[in-house]
Parts: sequence; C-alpha cells; structure tokens
Amino acid sequence: MVESIDNTIKYISLKKISNPLGDVWHAIKSSDSEYVGFGEAYFSFIEKGKIKGWKKHKKATLNLVVPVGEIKFFAFDEDQEDKNSKLSSFTLSEENYFRLTIPSGIWLAFKGLKERNMLLNVSDYSHDPSEVEAIEIENFPINLND
Amino acid sequence: MVESIDNTIKYISLKKISNPLGDVWHAIKSSDSEYVGFGEAYFSFIEKGKIKGWKKHKKATLNLVVPVGEIKFFAFDEDQEDKNSKLSSFTLSEENYFRLTIPSGIWLAFKGLKERNMLLNVSDYSHDPSEVEAIEIENFPINLND
Repeated sequence: MVESIDNTIKYISLKKISNPLGDVWHAIKSSDSEYVGFGEAYFSFIEKGKIKGWKKHKKATLNLVVPVGEIKFFAFDEDQEDKNSKLSSFTLSEENYFRLTIPSGIWLAFKGLKERNMLLNVSDYSHDPSEVEAIEIENFPINLND
Repeated sequence: MVESIDNTIKYISLKKISNPLGDVWHAIKSSDSEYVGFGEAYFSFIEKGKIKGWKKHKKATLNLVVPVGEIKFFAFDEDQEDKNSKLSSFTLSEENYFRLTIPSGIWLAFKGLKERNMLLNVSDYSHDPSEVEAIEIENFPINLND
C-alpha cells in the first residue's frame, strides 16, 4: 500500500509477519520504489517530550521506521507556495507501523512520545555534515510547541 | 575496531554517539568493509528463551545488530575440518553493541535472552526462500540446549 502525501514525502504501511518465536517486521527492500540507494543505516533515539531538529539534507533521502515507541515527525517544505501545506506531520510507532520517506530539500524535526523511542534511518548517503543544514528549534519559523 | 574471528564471520564494535535528546547508534555504512550490497533491511524479534534457526543462506550475507535486548547467535560452519571450530557463538546486546557479519554458507541460529529482543538485519539479498536452507532445531547435529 502506497499512500503518497504529495510528490515527495511518502508514508507507507509496512508488513509485520507473525511468528510465535518472535515477529518479523519489514523495513525496506531494494525493490521498493522509495529505495534510492544505500549509504548508511543507523538508529536514533529520542527522549520522551524532546525534539530533535530542524535539519534539511541537501542530497540525502531518509527512510524512517519506528520499531520502538512512538515518534511524531514534522516535515516543512519551504518551497511549497501554499502556506498551509508547508508543514505536515506523521506519527510512526510500533502500532502504527509505517515507513516515512523524506526526500532531500525538506526540513525535518521529530519528537519522542513514549518512554523509549527509536527510529531506524536507511539513507542513500553516509553521514556528511556538508550536506546537512541545521536550524535550532527556537530559531525556526514554525513553533512546534504551539 | 575490527575483530576478525576467522576469514568469514566478523564481529565488530559499533559506535554509540551520546546526545542528551537521545543517542545515535551506528549500524552499517556502505564504506564498511563488511558491506557487500543492499537487498533488504528488516527487524526480527525473538522471545526470551526461544530459538530461531537453523538457517543457511546460499547467497546472502547477513549484517546483524541488536539495538533492543540481548541475543545469542550460534554459527555453524560445516566446512571447517576441525570439529571444535565448527561452532562459534556471539552475544550481541544494547550493552555489548556489535555488528555480526555472517557470510553465505554458514548455518545460523539465535536465542532471545531478555524479555524483549530485536535484531536488525541488513542483507545484500531480499527475502528469497530459494536461497535459504532450513533444518529444524531438533534435527540439527548440534544440540543448543546441552
């Protein structure tokens, strides 16, 4: 199932395969249309009530999955002409098990909602500070605590 | 740090980057020498005291990381002439944060040690039953409950 929110961000339901010994949960395959190459896979934890961001990747596409806890993602597309469609949000969790694909050029922040929250990011670039722009939460034009 | 156990299986310490908002834990980069291509990334859970296995991949290399709980992996190399070096074991956990690379041709089983245990596998092949051999635990020449 592909749910295209717009031409860029994708929010896709992932399969969980039940097994009495322990389930298997899909993350991403090379045959998925959102897969654009492999640079790095890493985990990022986010404490309850805390927000990481804002960051914008100039080159990298992020593929985000949340197998532990619950994380709310905020995506800000500064190139959208319609002010109301600049900001979108997506909540991923163990229960609401989706993959969120964030293309380059989109600002991203995310907030931890449970006691322990962890995302997997499969990106087509390895960590490279030169391809990342960052703006502190308090200096960003959007206030997430409103 | 690379700890080569032999010419095939690799057991490598991974970096955890501390952050007051939530840590970042490495899994695998395309520049790592163990990286041999991307086919699929998925999570596998294993219940406490339960064992999944045995399975042998004819083609796929597995890159295994345990960001939740603690899992003991058993690798059986039937091609080893020395009987005592056929079986090796490796315990990966949140605290003992390593990546285990299992090349094709090695039999693998794994056991959950904590209440909740989860591995990430980054494999160079997507799931394909035709490249996997499986033998039930009770029919395997090694008894893991000894």
